[in-house]
Amino acid sequence: MLPFTRVTIVGLGLIGSSVARAIRATMPTVCITGHDADADVREAARRLDLADDVTDTPGAAVIDADLVIFCVPVGAIGAAAAAVRDDLPADAIVSDVGSCKAEVARALADALPGVAIVPAHPVAGTEQSGPAAGFATLFHRRWCILTPVEGTPEVAVERVAAFWRRLGADVETMTPDHHDRVLAVTSHLPHLIAYTIVGTASDLEQVTESEVIKYSAGGFRDFTRIAASDPTMWRDVFLTNRTAVLEMLQRFSEDLTALQRAIRVGDGEQLFEHFTRTRAVRRSIVEQGQDDSAPDFGRSAHHRIDAAEEPR
Amino acid sequence: MLPFTRVTIVGLGLIGSSVARAIRATMPTVCITGHDADADVREAARRLDLADDVTDTPGAAVIDADLVIFCVPVGAIGAAAAAVRDDLPADAIVSDVGSCKAEVARALADALPGVAIVPAHPVAGTEQSGPAAGFATLFHRRWCILTPVEGTPEVAVERVAAFWRRLGADVETMTPDHHDRVLAVTSHLPHLIAYTIVGTASDLEQVTESEVIKYSAGGFRDFTRIAASDPTMWRDVFLTNRTAVLEMLQRFSEDLTALQRAIRVGDGEQLFEHFTRTRAVRRSIVEQGQDDSAPDFGRSAHHRIDAAEEPR
Repeated sequence: MLPFTRVTIVGLGLIGSSVARAIRATMPTVCITGHDADADVREAARRLDLADDVTDTPGAAVIDADLVIFCVPVGAIGAAAAAVRDDLPADAIVSDVGSCKAEVARALADALPGVAIVPAHPVAGTEQSGPAAGFATLFHRRWCILTPVEGTPEVAVERVAAFWRRLGADVETMTPDHHDRVLAVTSHLPHLIAYTIVGTASDLEQVTESEVIKYSAGGFRDFTRIAASDPTMWRDVFLTNRTAVLEMLQRFSEDLTALQRAIRVGDGEQLFEHFTRTRAVRRSIVEQGQDDSAPDFGRSAHHRIDAAEEPR
Repeated sequence: MLPFTRVTIVGLGLIGSSVARAIRATMPTVCITGHDADADVREAARRLDLADDVTDTPGAAVIDADLVIFCVPVGAIGAAAAAVRDDLPADAIVSDVGSCKAEVARALADALPGVAIVPAHPVAGTEQSGPAAGFATLFHRRWCILTPVEGTPEVAVERVAAFWRRLGADVETMTPDHHDRVLAVTSHLPHLIAYTIVGTASDLEQVTESEVIKYSAGGFRDFTRIAASDPTMWRDVFLTNRTAVLEMLQRFSEDLTALQRAIRVGDGEQLFEHFTRTRAVRRSIVEQGQDDSAPDFGRSAHHRIDAAEEPR
């Protein structure tokens, strides 16, 4: 059974276009309507044939939808929701894909009183942006977190959950506040740290930026990937999930100071103990299929063949 | 022309075993002798047929070598060099693969007075450890930095450079001090930050470690890879390159405080400007072949096919 038959996607960037492609791949009879505030993106979406129809106005996009998903930066969700209010069918379910949930749930409820709202966050993405960057398997084996607000009919939550499962995701439910704390540590803080270190490295006097780039394979390049993520999206994330991010940042700074002290006083034992502990976390992530165990992420094209020849 | 005909590798972990495999692949007539202080590693190296001979003592390994490469943690290089002094042929060239060069150059010179020493650092590696983790193409298109000390015959430097080029690396020369500053920012600081954040994430009360692992695809997993690197190696790196690491850490902390403040006061413009700037650094790294442009490092096996079908 199809959870929805007429899906509207507002915002056709990396995530919105991936949702569209994933629907096409897994539920080909679903009618997809798209809209984006940017005329160039609408044009690209038409050229890429991402939807059955790409409308020039948000209202026209939702007119006969049974599911409307906002795939816009979290700071723009309230306005995007308000823009479709007058045209939204009474029984349509509204969802989103934002990386912060407490603020977004409030913004959606304020803009669309009386509407069944099921905020969602597929924990998946790449450092690329725009409609051409999306792909149908982006959500495969990734978690999609639903944060239904009080009063949402259980059946609406169930249908949105079924929808994400069809796209290949595993679905989990939690409160918006807990979501925001979990993501502050698993996603927002890592991005902030990565943005910081990439900035630090390009501002040094004694080491040139070209040296930093040249020798980045020593570890730095791992940070640059997430520091290449969409600036608008991330500005909004940090402003929206401010409290949880600042709390996690405080913890991080304390821990960094402790390791800094261990280096300064030459406490090799503390360093060794810490580095051994963190190794186990990596093992669990690989075991649970949330990353690839191929050394170096398979960046070195030939190593797999090589490794396969050897007993381990 | 072969730069060397009898190469001895002391330390048969990830790097040492990769050097051995790369020699086999690119200079099959070279005679390789190996030694490791750990009997289990020696046993594994024999089983993997990494060398023509794996000796039980360091002295026996170097007896007829024209090149001896120490592939041990930087804190152990001085002792490893002292252990071969009595058996080293007078015309043998000595090198290493350590991640810090000023300290290591001193330790080698102290242990082996009068010997031609060419310290080297191939900027390549994976998060795996041990003799089975190595592979022949690890150094392909990676930089190998030579930091010759004053008085080293130019011909010795040239031969070591030729050796690394044969293994597939590009070779660059700089002073030990400059090397240590460059690597502090491109490698040591990123590892320290990654070790810290992985520790922070596993110590929270409100978010469980299993949640951190489950939702790691949001960014956190990128840090866990390098935080899974060998603890002994990295303890030694931080203790050895202490000054440069602490200096870079100070810069990083200042920059982090500035972004923290921007979040606290809600300065979206500053965040956006910073995040836009860091994006350009990533582009340069991909352009220079030091990383893969495939979104998500190709972690999602199917996206390439999908992306290839679309115009960009």
